[in-house]
Amino acid sequence: MSDSIVISIDAMGGDHGPAVAVPGVAQALEGFGGRQVRFLLFGDEAQINAELARHPKARAACEVRHTDKVIASDEKAAQALRRGKGSSLWNAVEAVKDGDAQAAVSAGNTGGLMAISKLLLRMTGGLDRPAIVASWPTMRGVTAVLDVGANVSSDAAQLVEFAIMGEAFHCAVHGAHRPSVGLLNVGSEEQKGHEEVREAHKILREAGLDLDYRGFVEGDDIAKGTVDVVVTDGFSGNIALKTAEGTARFVRSVMREAFNSSLQAKIGAMIAAPALHKMRDRLDPSSVNGGPLLGLNGIVVKSHGGADARGYANAIRIAADLASSDYAAQIDRNMKQLAAALPGPGSAGPAAEPAESAQ
Amino acid sequence: MSDSIVISIDAMGGDHGPAVAVPGVAQALEGFGGRQVRFLLFGDEAQINAELARHPKARAACEVRHTDKVIASDEKAAQALRRGKGSSLWNAVEAVKDGDAQAAVSAGNTGGLMAISKLLLRMTGGLDRPAIVASWPTMRGVTAVLDVGANVSSDAAQLVEFAIMGEAFHCAVHGAHRPSVGLLNVGSEEQKGHEEVREAHKILREAGLDLDYRGFVEGDDIAKGTVDVVVTDGFSGNIALKTAEGTARFVRSVMREAFNSSLQAKIGAMIAAPALHKMRDRLDPSSVNGGPLLGLNGIVVKSHGGADARGYANAIRIAADLASSDYAAQIDRNMKQLAAALPGPGSAGPAAEPAESAQ
Repeated sequence: MSDSIVISIDAMGGDHGPAVAVPGVAQALEGFGGRQVRFLLFGDEAQINAELARHPKARAACEVRHTDKVIASDEKAAQALRRGKGSSLWNAVEAVKDGDAQAAVSAGNTGGLMAISKLLLRMTGGLDRPAIVASWPTMRGVTAVLDVGANVSSDAAQLVEFAIMGEAFHCAVHGAHRPSVGLLNVGSEEQKGHEEVREAHKILREAGLDLDYRGFVEGDDIAKGTVDVVVTDGFSGNIALKTAEGTARFVRSVMREAFNSSLQAKIGAMIAAPALHKMRDRLDPSSVNGGPLLGLNGIVVKSHGGADARGYANAIRIAADLASSDYAAQIDRNMKQLAAALPGPGSAGPAAEPAESAQ
Repeated sequence: MSDSIVISIDAMGGDHGPAVAVPGVAQALEGFGGRQVRFLLFGDEAQINAELARHPKARAACEVRHTDKVIASDEKAAQALRRGKGSSLWNAVEAVKDGDAQAAVSAGNTGGLMAISKLLLRMTGGLDRPAIVASWPTMRGVTAVLDVGANVSSDAAQLVEFAIMGEAFHCAVHGAHRPSVGLLNVGSEEQKGHEEVREAHKILREAGLDLDYRGFVEGDDIAKGTVDVVVTDGFSGNIALKTAEGTARFVRSVMREAFNSSLQAKIGAMIAAPALHKMRDRLDPSSVNGGPLLGLNGIVVKSHGGADARGYANAIRIAADLASSDYAAQIDRNMKQLAAALPGPGSAGPAAEPAESAQ
C-alpha cells in the first residue's frame, strides 16, 4: 500500500453535485484512519467552497480547481467527448492522466465518463472497452457483476476479458484470495444461450487462464453468491442490476406496509426495531455504491447519479483501494495467457454492431 | 365466457410430477366456483391414480390417459421433438390440437414444450416464435414481462410482436382495460441500447398500433409497475426474472435473520406475525406462477418446474382465463396493422444467429 494517495473528484456530477460530493469526501476521510488521502475537487469554486465551509475537516484535505463547464447528464457520449474539454468531469480524469491524482471519482454522465476516460487514459493491453463493475450484496458476502452498463453488446473475447478484470477487482477491493467466476446465462447446460456466451464459456474452459472458472450461472445465482464474480454483457448486466434494485425496494416497501397495517404490527415493529435497522444497513445500496471502469490505464470510479453522501464515500473508498492495490499486474498476466491461447490477435476488434434488424 | 373448459395436463412434467400436478388440479378446482372445468391427465396411470385417491373431489373432474413415455428435463429441444411423440408432454399439447382440450399445462422441459407446441399447434399470423410471459407482482399490481426465456435473441419486429401479445394477455388474465406497454432498455433516452430495441421503439411509435406504448423503461421500472407490460428479448428477460426471484429470496432471508438475531427481535416478530404472513403471501412466487407460451394457435401454459401445488393451481387458472377470453382477436387486429405498417413482409424471418464472435 502506498502511503499517500490523491483522488480527483468531479464535484459537479450527479443529481446533487457538490452537495453530495463534498460530504462524501468528508465521510470517506473518516474511514481512512491512518491512510493519507488528499482530494482535488473540480467544479464551481463558489459552490464547492460553500459546501467545504460546512465540513472544515475535509477542507484541509481538499484543493479546489475551478471550472464553469459541466457535462449535462443527458448529453450523448460523442457530444460530451467533443465539447467536454475543460469540464469538471474531463479535468478530473485528466488529473489521473497527468499523474496529479491516482484515481478519479465522478457521479456524472456515464457515457461521457466512459468516452473521455477512454480517450485520455487509453485502454490497457488487449482490452477494447472499459467495463463497469457493480458490487452486489449477497447471501455469502459481495459478488462483483460486470459489465453493468458500459457496453450494450459484447463478443466472446470481451466477456473473457471481463472475467479477468472482475477477478482482479474482487481481489483488490473485496479481498477474496482466489475469487470464483461464473458466466451469466439462461441455463447451466452447455448448449444454452446465444453464440457469444457459449464461445466465451469454451475459451474460459480451455485457454489455461489462472482463474477459478465455474461455468454458467443464472440470474438467481447472483443474490445466492454462488460465485464471487458474475460476467455478462452490459445490456443484460444493467437490466439485472436495476431489476434487483427495484425488487429490493419493492420487498422493503411491502414490509413497511405490513408493519403499518395494524396497531399490533406497529408494536411488533417497534420492539424489533434495532434488528430491523441492522437489516436495513445490510441492504442499503449505498454500502456498495461505486462502479469502477475497468480496463483503463488509470482508475476511474463511477458513483450512482442519485447516490447520497454515504454512497459517494463508498465510491471513494473503492477508488482508494484500487489505487493502493496491484491488480493491474494480475490482469496483465491473464491477458497475456489469453492472447497466447486465442488463434489470431489477442482480442477481437471493436465489436460489430448487432447484425439483425427488423427488415 | 364459455361454460365448459377442458384442460390437458402433462402430469409427469416438473420436479415433482403427479405429486404436484394432481394436488394442483384439486386446488384449482376449488377456485373455479361455478365454472365447469374438466381435466385430461397424461402420464403414468398408476402414479396419477395413487395421487387422485388422495383427492376424491378432483377425481370426478379428471380423466387419466396413460403413457409410459416422459421427456427428461435436461433433454435438448431438438431431441425432445424427435423422440417426444407419445410422451405425456406431447400428448397434452396434442389434445389441444385435436380439440379435446382448450388449453394445456406442463411443468416439463421448456425447450421441448416450445418446440413440440410450435410443431403441433403452429404459430399464429405473422409470429415467428412463441414468447413466454411472466406475471410479476409489483407496487401497483401485476406487470406482464415477456419474453422470459423462449428466444435467446429477438429482432425488432419480434419485440413489437411481443408487445402486441403481452398487451392482449394482460387484458385477458389481469383485467387491465387498456394496459400500458414499455420496452426494456438500459436508459430512457432515444439513443440508448442496441439496434434491435431502438428499431422496435421506432416501430411501436410510428406503426399506428392500437397500443398504449410509453417508450423505454429500465430494470427498476418492472417492480415499480411503471407500465403493465414490459417487453424484452428472452435472454435479458430470463436473467431479469431470475435475478428478481433471487433478490426477493435474499431480502426475505436477511429479514428472517434479523428477526432471529435477538430475543427482543423474536418477540417483535411474534407480535407482528399476522401482518408478516400477509406480506409473505403477497410476495409468494406461486401466486404468479404460470407462463403462457404466446403466439400459438392454442393455449399452452408453462408451470415452473419447482412450483408447489398452489403455484400449479395458478398456472391452471391462467390457462382457464385465456381459454375463456377472446384475446386472439385483439392480437390479430394489431398484427394486421403491423403488417400494413412495415415495409416488406409483416414480420422478419427466423432471427439470424448473432453475427459477432470471438475471432
